[in-house]
Amino acid sequence: VEPERRRSWYGWGWEDEAVPEADAAALGQGLAAMFGLSLDRVSPPRPDEVDLPASRVRAPGSLPPLRTGTRDRAGHTYGKAFRDVARAFDRRWENPPDAVAYPRSERDVVALLDWAVDAGVALIPYGGGSSVVGGVEPDPNSERPVVSVDLRHLSGVVEVDTVSRAARIRAGTFGPDADRALRVHGLSMRHFPQSYEHSTVGGWVATRSGGHFATGPTHIDDLVESVRAVTPVGLWESRRLPASGAGPSPDRLLLGSEGTLGVITEVWLRVHERPRWRSSAALTFASLDAAAAAARACAQSGLQPSNCRLLDPTEAVSAGVTDSSSLLLVGFESADHSVRPWLDRAVEIAQDLGGRLRGPVRHSGPGADGTVDAVPSDADPASAWREAFLRAPYLRDVLVSFGVIAETFETACTWEAFPDLHRRVVAAVQDVLAQVCGGGQVGMRVTHVYPDGPAPYYTVLAPGRTGSLVAQWDEVKAAASEAITAAGGTITHHHAVGRTHRPGYDDQRPAPFAAALAAAKHAVDPHDVLHPGLLT
Amino acid sequence: VEPERRRSWYGWGWEDEAVPEADAAALGQGLAAMFGLSLDRVSPPRPDEVDLPASRVRAPGSLPPLRTGTRDRAGHTYGKAFRDVARAFDRRWENPPDAVAYPRSERDVVALLDWAVDAGVALIPYGGGSSVVGGVEPDPNSERPVVSVDLRHLSGVVEVDTVSRAARIRAGTFGPDADRALRVHGLSMRHFPQSYEHSTVGGWVATRSGGHFATGPTHIDDLVESVRAVTPVGLWESRRLPASGAGPSPDRLLLGSEGTLGVITEVWLRVHERPRWRSSAALTFASLDAAAAAARACAQSGLQPSNCRLLDPTEAVSAGVTDSSSLLLVGFESADHSVRPWLDRAVEIAQDLGGRLRGPVRHSGPGADGTVDAVPSDADPASAWREAFLRAPYLRDVLVSFGVIAETFETACTWEAFPDLHRRVVAAVQDVLAQVCGGGQVGMRVTHVYPDGPAPYYTVLAPGRTGSLVAQWDEVKAAASEAITAAGGTITHHHAVGRTHRPGYDDQRPAPFAAALAAAKHAVDPHDVLHPGLLT
Repeated sequence: VEPERRRSWYGWGWEDEAVPEADAAALGQGLAAMFGLSLDRVSPPRPDEVDLPASRVRAPGSLPPLRTGTRDRAGHTYGKAFRDVARAFDRRWENPPDAVAYPRSERDVVALLDWAVDAGVALIPYGGGSSVVGGVEPDPNSERPVVSVDLRHLSGVVEVDTVSRAARIRAGTFGPDADRALRVHGLSMRHFPQSYEHSTVGGWVATRSGGHFATGPTHIDDLVESVRAVTPVGLWESRRLPASGAGPSPDRLLLGSEGTLGVITEVWLRVHERPRWRSSAALTFASLDAAAAAARACAQSGLQPSNCRLLDPTEAVSAGVTDSSSLLLVGFESADHSVRPWLDRAVEIAQDLGGRLRGPVRHSGPGADGTVDAVPSDADPASAWREAFLRAPYLRDVLVSFGVIAETFETACTWEAFPDLHRRVVAAVQDVLAQVCGGGQVGMRVTHVYPDGPAPYYTVLAPGRTGSLVAQWDEVKAAASEAITAAGGTITHHHAVGRTHRPGYDDQRPAPFAAALAAAKHAVDPHDVLHPGLLT
Repeated sequence: VEPERRRSWYGWGWEDEAVPEADAAALGQGLAAMFGLSLDRVSPPRPDEVDLPASRVRAPGSLPPLRTGTRDRAGHTYGKAFRDVARAFDRRWENPPDAVAYPRSERDVVALLDWAVDAGVALIPYGGGSSVVGGVEPDPNSERPVVSVDLRHLSGVVEVDTVSRAARIRAGTFGPDADRALRVHGLSMRHFPQSYEHSTVGGWVATRSGGHFATGPTHIDDLVESVRAVTPVGLWESRRLPASGAGPSPDRLLLGSEGTLGVITEVWLRVHERPRWRSSAALTFASLDAAAAAARACAQSGLQPSNCRLLDPTEAVSAGVTDSSSLLLVGFESADHSVRPWLDRAVEIAQDLGGRLRGPVRHSGPGADGTVDAVPSDADPASAWREAFLRAPYLRDVLVSFGVIAETFETACTWEAFPDLHRRVVAAVQDVLAQVCGGGQVGMRVTHVYPDGPAPYYTVLAPGRTGSLVAQWDEVKAAASEAITAAGGTITHHHAVGRTHRPGYDDQRPAPFAAALAAAKHAVDPHDVLHPGLLT
């Protein structure tokens, strides 16, 4: 029997995949040179350094046990944002939940809800805890006891409909576990948020997660066939339907509800045959505007590339492009047919707009005689990129230890608004970095493209001051959010609202909708037990 | 100046496009032969035959005038379902609105709402009035005075963003008027519900209309970039965004609200470049199961055909297929590229599953040298089919005059559930037709296909008894709805809820969602002024 792998209780990912010490030291030297500073390193927090206030809850014997150990409570105090890890390195655990429940069945969830209503306790539904927006954090302005409800034991693929290509998956199932169970049927969710290994199906639905496809049905919203959730007034379960025009969609009200309307326990997801053909290319552009025009043309072409990722000159450096060009990665995948004609046309579109091919155009898949002319997964540059992408949060935790600010934020806007939004966001962030950190850099990539607009994703790297990292970052984030709102962008494209985005969310949502949502919540959760104060 | 064309006040469409008398008489002879009966003809209702109860409302001078003429009130009593036209031929106008308002601005709408709250009057937002589910009908169980709010003067395309391909369109704009304004930009909505000529953009959003594309973003839900609506508690306007992950989507709560949450006044819709390339083919199959397997394979292939329409042997007769085969029509269109490889693969898929090509594979579009090798719109068999499709409701009105039951209903279900659902629905309808009409026929086509299921659409034709048509049809509809619900289908795929589907809607929606929707409605419409009793 293999020993169970443990996830870090204060930082990103698996404990056994943390960046090795030698690599961390080398990274520190590189950062010191980059910022012209000597950077001290803070050691990671240890559980014995954590001093939590006493738990205020005790569960009756009829409930699943509430755990109050340090790793349980401290480990459920924050998500995995930069400011969460920075607070952990600061040894700050000011507002932990009073306990963590680990229900083993839907019946346990119902019992917890009943008890919480009677006991006046707030519950926070908790999937993988990978929120980067304060989405699992108790309300700092409330005196009520709080229990975090960790759904990891509500796990597994319960049913697979191979005819309709859909699977019933328990909410607490982590991405790789779901795909492992689907693989025996030749199926996959093809939903790869950056948190894929450390987030759950229920968490995806609750937060409207965005997948790795650049176009088409990439948001979990479009993959949901039905949802089952426990609310304080009863079970909320929709029918399995490919589409329906019967009133406002019940699923779309749970999608994005972030645990405030119900505890999601099961989801029917649309799944895909595993892809067999892939085609991809990379093109450079002399200007970001030209690259954006090409991305727009691809998005509006109807070709529906699975990848159409634009990297600005700062981000393109990481892909080996050092001549200040912008880089466009474009790719297609299919389980049914060769996608050469699709890629050929996309490359033609990009070349017409000034793109120059960088490296070979790659095709893989079964040949005409049934042989496979390349193994897709390893030969594909997108796989290497994905590996780096999945490693990034581990590196982020090392940066925090060196007192470096390393965080991302994202938005989406129309193509018409994009050039101005991008200029304003970069200017605002550079200004605030100069004031707060004495400098730093901001890079941009476009992660998703729609016919009517892109979703730009910004990465900030700047020298901070250990002990002040959170306050410094909060200033940067406020300036970025203000610029985004003023330029017509959304406060969040796929990171959800959480406690972090609440001010921008309040600014941006229609007032009657806010009233409607508050009333809807009160109807299904009259005692305000579910994640109080988060969205309403 | 051309005389303004008038829409029929009791039946379908333009008065000047009604079926000519000679054609109607010939149709009557055909029907008489088909059913082995002699069919009498009822003459269409005349306004001077209509006896309405006195109007109970009077508007202050500050409001736009409320019209109480017979054509206004009788013309806004019903939608355009079979049972609506049958009631008109029966000279039944039992529950008309007390008046019709024709606001000329959003300010007029606000004034109407304010007045309605004070006066205790119910308002029914009215677009094109093409509902086939009792969606514009006053509550038969309420004693409150009712004003129908006809939005036809809130019309026009106000703004076009050609970069982002989106247009701001006033809610009362009819389909062809919107496309005419977009055409000068080379753009089109590409949204063609059967009611296209006689329904409005606001009505589409309020009822979640389905377009003509068989796959991909065909529902208005996916074309909405933002919505502006007037509610009794203020303006509900969302930001223009290609996507957002900020909480549950405000737009998705208005989509399908059928006038109960607000009066939609403007919508930003995603629009398309007008297509230049088209490819299409027709294939026959020895069995419906084989044709369905091919439709499923096409839907799951990722090819995203614009047309993938399956006709059962009964429906295929109308396309000239008389050997009991089922027919699959498959087609692609693009503004960007030739779609030959797409169609070639779809045909290959269908042939692998037993399909035999019927007639030539058709391709049209600009040639390699820039010339157009065929004019797409006329040469395309889909255009001829569409013309017949758009004429069908005119013929329906003639059938009513002969005392023939002619109506459709639709659903959607998973592929796994489809064979059983189809058998149960056909059996239930044939049983009830035998009992109620002594016979009749039911045909099925699949109008939309999703990776996880089809949307079958049923057409019923049966000899009825003049004067009893509504009661007869209601029995057929009840049996069909019961079979659909029992077999896992949705009560409506794209016809909305209305008064007709309310029982099935109540059965099918999750109880906590019903409570949430009622509470949301009360929050934005505390005096229950907007279409009371329709959805909550």
